[in-house]
Amino acid sequence: MGKSILITGGVRSGKSRLAERMTLALGSPAIYIATAEAHDAEMTERIARHRARRGPEWHAISEPTKLVQALQDSDGDAPRLVDCLTLWLSNLMLAEQDWQAEAEALAAILPEQRAPVVFVTNEVGAGIVPENALARAFRDAAGLVNQTIAAASDELWLSVAGYPLKVK
Amino acid sequence: MGKSILITGGVRSGKSRLAERMTLALGSPAIYIATAEAHDAEMTERIARHRARRGPEWHAISEPTKLVQALQDSDGDAPRLVDCLTLWLSNLMLAEQDWQAEAEALAAILPEQRAPVVFVTNEVGAGIVPENALARAFRDAAGLVNQTIAAASDELWLSVAGYPLKVK
Amino acid sequence: MGKSILITGGVRSGKSRLAERMTLALGSPAIYIATAEAHDAEMTERIARHRARRGPEWHAISEPTKLVQALQDSDGDAPRLVDCLTLWLSNLMLAEQDWQAEAEALAAILPEQRAPVVFVTNEVGAGIVPENALARAFRDAAGLVNQTIAAASDELWLSVAGYPLKVK
Repeated sequence: MGKSILITGGVRSGKSRLAERMTLALGSPAIYIATAEAHDAEMTERIARHRARRGPEWHAISEPTKLVQALQDSDGDAPRLVDCLTLWLSNLMLAEQDWQAEAEALAAILPEQRAPVVFVTNEVGAGIVPENALARAFRDAAGLVNQTIAAASDELWLSVAGYPLKVK
Repeated sequence: MGKSILITGGVRSGKSRLAERMTLALGSPAIYIATAEAHDAEMTERIARHRARRGPEWHAISEPTKLVQALQDSDGDAPRLVDCLTLWLSNLMLAEQDWQAEAEALAAILPEQRAPVVFVTNEVGAGIVPENALARAFRDAAGLVNQTIAAASDELWLSVAGYPLKVK
Repeated sequence: MGKSILITGGVRSGKSRLAERMTLALGSPAIYIATAEAHDAEMTERIARHRARRGPEWHAISEPTKLVQALQDSDGDAPRLVDCLTLWLSNLMLAEQDWQAEAEALAAILPEQRAPVVFVTNEVGAGIVPENALARAFRDAAGLVNQTIAAASDELWLSVAGYPLKVK
């Protein structure tokens, strides 16, 4: 069975680079599953920068919401990198889908995957309580998604300034 | 003497569940000291969810501000779980009490406690500087309370996505 | 060659005290390089508190932006403490200087320093995404500066409630 790894950390903590290195250490070529959608200029530029950094050993797929399907469809020999769960959650919430059921379904298929999966996620709950109720609901949901996927993963790492701390 | 443990982490990082497990590992039945007050619907629901998760091995006490007294009064054979210090600080500030003196008094009684105490607290200082001066003052105070209780505790853990990292 | 150490953590996580202890462990007297400027009453008070805590074994320098120069000029026998990189970044951005080039220049001189350097920096990226575009740009930049200096440092520590976790 393929190993599953969750890498969490603050924004710009080097999570994506760590995840790329860990994924390629599990096999190459690898599959990059992007959950980002280019809604605005800021996000378009961020996606382009990510893409420019990755080399020819990556095959990229874009899947904003149907991660369970994307993992089932891509389950072959190549390791997969999912970047990131926080945007996936945001996409599910915007589409008014049941994110909790989706997170549980994702956790449930992990033990059956043949090829490894590395997930990137964000720490969003270590700041001051947001004044905005939607922001509070989002950070609660993001924390729960992280816990659900961490529990189903073989390894959990915290990225700090580009270096990994092993948590599980 | 009873061991004292501080568990910190972001919101929804699984701190309370970890604390419940660590407390029951120190003895059962256990005493749950809640610092939350149900001021609004969101908080009422959060408290109800917490209560539903805990089983019959818990005896619950509610104490928004007088933690020193609550620990002295409950110091018998059962381990105590205090959830959480950040709300306690917020309650002290709202009541215009001297939170710094209260935190020092709390730290001072820890070495004399016969029964163990597990504290839950929040990381609130790892986001961007809040624009609001009150929020800045609160996160400064929360960090100082965490340092004061961490220094007086036997163990300090950081909760990340439901898993503990030992710091002290 | 002098060792370089980066200490990161949330606000009021005890970073500065840890950094002071680590610096004095590398030699005494030591040089304190403050990047803070006293723009307002809140910051003036914060600087005064920091200064009052440090003892006579410190020689203090104030340098808001020209850190490369300050390190070159102070490179003798005494260890240096730079507190902190996040304010330095903020000063560079306010002065409309090329912070990325400055961070790379700073990283580049570290291996050649004779005396040790301890840097303090802030975790600002583990809260909810700020609504304000400038705040988003700042936390991106702060994360990149942390990664750049961490990569060039011999040690990286995360401060949690006053206690250090070794990351690198």
